[in-house]
Parts: sequence; structure tokens; C-alpha cells
Amino acid sequence: MKVYNFSAGPSMLSEAVKLEVQRDFLNFSNSGMSIVEMSHRSKFFEDVHNQGITLLKEIMNINDDYEVLFLQGGASQQFDAVPLNLFAKGRADYIVTGSFAAKATTEAKKYGDVVIAASSKDKNYTYIPNVDSINFRENLDYVHITQNNTIFGTRYTSLPKTEAPLVSDVSSMILSEEIDISKYGLVYAGAQKNIGPAGLTVVIVKKELMRTPMPICPTMLRYSTHADANSLYNTPPCFCIYMAMLAFKEIKALGGVKEVYKTNLHKASLLYDYIDNSSFYSNKVFLKDRSLMNVPFITPSAELDSLFVSQATQNGLVSLKGHRSVGGMRASIYNAMPVEGVEKLILFMKKFEMQNKTALRS
Amino acid sequence: MKVYNFSAGPSMLSEAVKLEVQRDFLNFSNSGMSIVEMSHRSKFFEDVHNQGITLLKEIMNINDDYEVLFLQGGASQQFDAVPLNLFAKGRADYIVTGSFAAKATTEAKKYGDVVIAASSKDKNYTYIPNVDSINFRENLDYVHITQNNTIFGTRYTSLPKTEAPLVSDVSSMILSEEIDISKYGLVYAGAQKNIGPAGLTVVIVKKELMRTPMPICPTMLRYSTHADANSLYNTPPCFCIYMAMLAFKEIKALGGVKEVYKTNLHKASLLYDYIDNSSFYSNKVFLKDRSLMNVPFITPSAELDSLFVSQATQNGLVSLKGHRSVGGMRASIYNAMPVEGVEKLILFMKKFEMQNKTALRS
Repeated sequence: MKVYNFSAGPSMLSEAVKLEVQRDFLNFSNSGMSIVEMSHRSKFFEDVHNQGITLLKEIMNINDDYEVLFLQGGASQQFDAVPLNLFAKGRADYIVTGSFAAKATTEAKKYGDVVIAASSKDKNYTYIPNVDSINFRENLDYVHITQNNTIFGTRYTSLPKTEAPLVSDVSSMILSEEIDISKYGLVYAGAQKNIGPAGLTVVIVKKELMRTPMPICPTMLRYSTHADANSLYNTPPCFCIYMAMLAFKEIKALGGVKEVYKTNLHKASLLYDYIDNSSFYSNKVFLKDRSLMNVPFITPSAELDSLFVSQATQNGLVSLKGHRSVGGMRASIYNAMPVEGVEKLILFMKKFEMQNKTALRS
Repeated sequence: MKVYNFSAGPSMLSEAVKLEVQRDFLNFSNSGMSIVEMSHRSKFFEDVHNQGITLLKEIMNINDDYEVLFLQGGASQQFDAVPLNLFAKGRADYIVTGSFAAKATTEAKKYGDVVIAASSKDKNYTYIPNVDSINFRENLDYVHITQNNTIFGTRYTSLPKTEAPLVSDVSSMILSEEIDISKYGLVYAGAQKNIGPAGLTVVIVKKELMRTPMPICPTMLRYSTHADANSLYNTPPCFCIYMAMLAFKEIKALGGVKEVYKTNLHKASLLYDYIDNSSFYSNKVFLKDRSLMNVPFITPSAELDSLFVSQATQNGLVSLKGHRSVGGMRASIYNAMPVEGVEKLILFMKKFEMQNKTALRS
């Protein structure tokens, strides 16, 4: 049975990319070696690595004011790396729109004067605070946001206006829609949602921001360590970089992020429209702030939610259980989720609604 | 042409493991999903992860006084994590036996009172200082060694006797020979030499040592963060853990590390014996301190060294170029290098010697 995987990450990857990886796994580029056993200093791997960086710059339209870094440790490690690298005055404002934003704030507080400028905790993170009405402090090193909130299914549709550089955790939305990198000082993303296997973290940082890390910053967390070595200071996560490169190449071949975005908009619309027109399912997120990547929804009861998840799994629609802090279901529909996956989900939702509305009535 | 890869890391992996990974790449354990796209919270991945930890404990004979952690960032990140976690008094002694040992020392000095208790820099790291004659300071948090020196081809054959816990970078020798874990407070290793793909770091740490990190220690570098979450605090490098688990399983099936060691001893003996009996090739390392994993050697001239490397490559014996700080050649013969790879290398060395001795004479 064909399986559609709605996991929040690690999540579905492109069929074509997986087939290429499998085909070449024992003999990459006629080298007689697997990509997983090649020296990171070999010509073979360096080509993959440099292609990956070049392609990402191209599809995200990143100019030479920025450095593209391929790191490890996930977004969680960036929660520390960001303040350790960017604190000169030791002051930053954070907007807290979910659990990961809150974790990022907690880490930054260890190193400086950090204030929560706005939060949507009052309504269990079901909205994004109005960015135009936030008063940021002056003399900040940066303002930090979490641009798509994986657990709660929200997303910024406009960015806060701030004198200070904007830092954004784009883990669950990178490459799903176009972003204007010139509006940011730094963005970071774990790869395991829209890029490739877990184990790679992408950081895109304005060069002028990364030259004065705090003295206590570990060398491996210092951006300039990796920038100065083209992300080859020590052995990088080669296999993840290889699969990321293939994903970037595929996006380019599809016509760029602009085209990927159209498909994502289509997929999300199909699902939200169906939910909005149903009296059985609902989504609690404020309309204007809905994520295109993570769609939480519920049925009329927690019992039916459980039944939904288990029957969906039996039907090849897996990892639909919502995060424990939200409950219900969550369909993560990242770039690699095909339209037919969303259509199959909606079909199943219809059937489940019919069966269980009847059951409730009788 | 069959290729034998003598890279210092990433390096050769087991043929059987690679075949299994390729076979199951599109459909792991009949899940309909690839291992690279599964949630790290899924039953499928958790089984892989827990099996990996259990198998490593088994083949290394690790008891419950120790925590096995699957982390990211490589050994280089441990150069910071070790002092950040273990410094209570803020005092440690380091033995410097190569470039990585020196880097580890430099990092630790950022956080406390660190002294080089012994070094072999005087002879370009061609030996291991006599561990019995080292005077360590008192009241140390730990003593740090680099147990096998990848670049220089040396290895400790006995451990320093110290009151303080012993911390060892075992990156290029883990699982190549039996070690008695009870003699250590902590060992760490990047996976890309004897375990699996780059992107996984294994840390084995005595539980009693990891409970009082320095307050400036980033949460992601804190051992207890990962210990408390069974190394699933955030998304781990799932694919690397999967391949590591398969490598551990293979070692167990082969009869354990004891058997692997016998083969490694045989491979290293073949190569050293040939070099020692040749007047053309030489190895500069003190006999008693020779590595079983990394064998540096030279011909009579730098020109012949270059010729050797390029002709060897043409003959399917790749990545034999020595590190720039040593020159010449280096054959890394980790666990996955078959005996026939070493035999092929020796055969080529013989041919090269014959051709070039003649050439020099004529």
C-alpha cells in the first residue's frame, strides 16, 4: 500500500530524489564508492557540497552579503548559537508564538538581556501577534521570530518592522514560499522538514553580523569558524548535504520556489476549504495566520480523534496525531507531500465524517 | 573496478550494511516509508534507535553506570562539551599527541585552568609520551587523552594512571579493539571512521560526572539534556543512527570486538611487516606506539610519494595521500577495510618499489 506520511518532521521526501539516492548508493558518480564513505575532502564530495551551497543561493536568491552555512545540531542548537554570535550589546527582543519560540527565548536569556516583546500564549498560540503594533526596545542586537509554528499551525504573513536585524527560525517553512532574504539578518532551519534527512541545519547569515561572537562561544558554535572554512571546518553531515543538494536541484528544475509555493497554496487550500465547509472538523487557528505547512484539526470529540488517527493509519495516511499540547490531528504537508496525498486525506476525512455522523445519530 | 578506500574518514563501510541500506531505502521494515523520512517519534525509528544503544552497550560491555548518547557536531564539538560539562573545579590536564589533541586543549583553556601535562610535539607527534612518568596535578576534574592519532598514526597501548576521571577521544579507534570502559570517565567518537556515515557522535559518559555543567553550557551541549531524553531531546541524525545500528549488529554477529581486533591486528601486521622489511618504504612512528588504524609511510622522495598516490588511485587504491602536516602516504585501515584491501595495497607497493628502484638505477 502506498503510504502518505503527514509527520511534522522528519517527513516525506521526494520520490525522485529517493530513487536517485538508492540507485547511486553503492557507486556514486562512478567512483566505486558510496557517498556515505567518501572523504569530505575528496573532489567527489566537495562538488556535491559546493553545488548544494550554490543551488541554495540560487533558489533563495541570496547575494554575497550573506553566508550559507551547513551545520549540525538542529534548530535547537541555534537557540544558543544565535545569541552567542550576535550579542554585542547583549540585548534582544523575542516574539513567542509557540513552544520552540519559547525555548529559543529561554536559551537567549542565559546570555543577555532578553525581553518577550509579544506573545500569543494567551490563546494557546492560535495566532500571530499583530506585528505592526509591537513596540521593540531600542539598541537591540536583533529581534527573533519563529516564522512557522509547527505544533500550532501558524505562520507570519508579514514581518515585524524593526531597526535591529531580524532573526527567524524558518525550520518548517524554508523553501515552501519565497522569502526576501534582504529583510533578515539571519535565518536558520533544521533540514528534516522541507529539505532532506535529519542531521543538517542550514544557517543563512549576513556577513557583517557574524564577526564578534561572545568570548564564551564554543568554536563549533561560532559562525565564522564555519564561514571561513566553507562549512568544512570539521567533517560535515555529508549524506544529508548530498540529499539536500538533490532537493535544491529538484526545486530549481520545477521552476523555483515560486512554483513550489503555488502547489503548497493549492494543497493547503484544498484542506482548509474542506475543513471550513465541514461541521464535523475544525481548525482553531485565526484565519489570517494559518500555516501552509502544518494543519491541525479536530473532530467533535477526543475519542473520535483517536479513532480517526488509528483508522487513517490503517488506510496508509500516517503520523496524523497532533502534538500533545494541542491534541487532535495535524497534517504536515511539506513540499514533498504530493497533491494526491492531500486529496486522499480529504477523501478519508469525508468517509470518516459520514460513518461517524451516522454512528452518533443512531 | 573494485575500489579500496584508505581515507582517514569518512571511510569504507561494510559491504553487507550498504547492501541492506540500499535494499530497504524506499521501504523500511515494510512501512512504505524510507528510514530518512520517518518521524523520530515513530515506533519504527525508536526501535532502531534503542537497538543501536542496546547493541553498543553489549559489544562494548558498558554497564548502567554509564550513559550512551547519540549526538551531533563531531569530536570537535566535544572539545567544548567536555569542559563545559565536567568542569566543577575548572581544572584539567591534557596530553597532547597530535593536532586534534592540541585543538581539544585550546578549547578547554577557554573555560578553565588547563595544563599540558605531556606532549610529543618535540618529535612531530611520532610517539606517545610514557604514561607512567607523567606527573598530573592534584584536584583535577579530568585528564584528557586522544587515544589514536589519525594524522600521525600513533596509539596508546596503556592508559595513564590518574586519580581524576580519564576522558578519551576514541574517534579513530572505537570498536577496533576492546577497551575497558570502567577505566574511563568519558569517551567520545565521531562515527565516520569505524561506525557509519558522518553526522553522528557517540559519547559514553559515567552518569555521576554529568550532573553539574557550567551555567554557560548551551542546553544542546549539556549531556544531561540528552541523557534525560534518551538522545531524543530534539530530532537526532536518524539515518546515521540507523547505519550505526547495522554496524553494531554486524560486529556482534562477527563475534564481537575481540574478533574484529584480531582481524585489525592481522591487517596492520601485514602492512607494517612489509614496510619494515622494505628499504624503499618507511614509517617514522616509534614501534611501540604504532596505530592499528592509520599507517603513515613514505618512499625515498616527495616526488615518488606523489607518483605513488596518483598511480595507486588509478589502480583503485584511493585516498592514500598523507595529511599535509606529515606528507607522504597514509593508509587508514578501519574495521570495514577487508584483508584483501591491505593485500592489494601491499601488492601495489611491491610493484611500485620494483618499477621505481629500477628507474632510479638506470
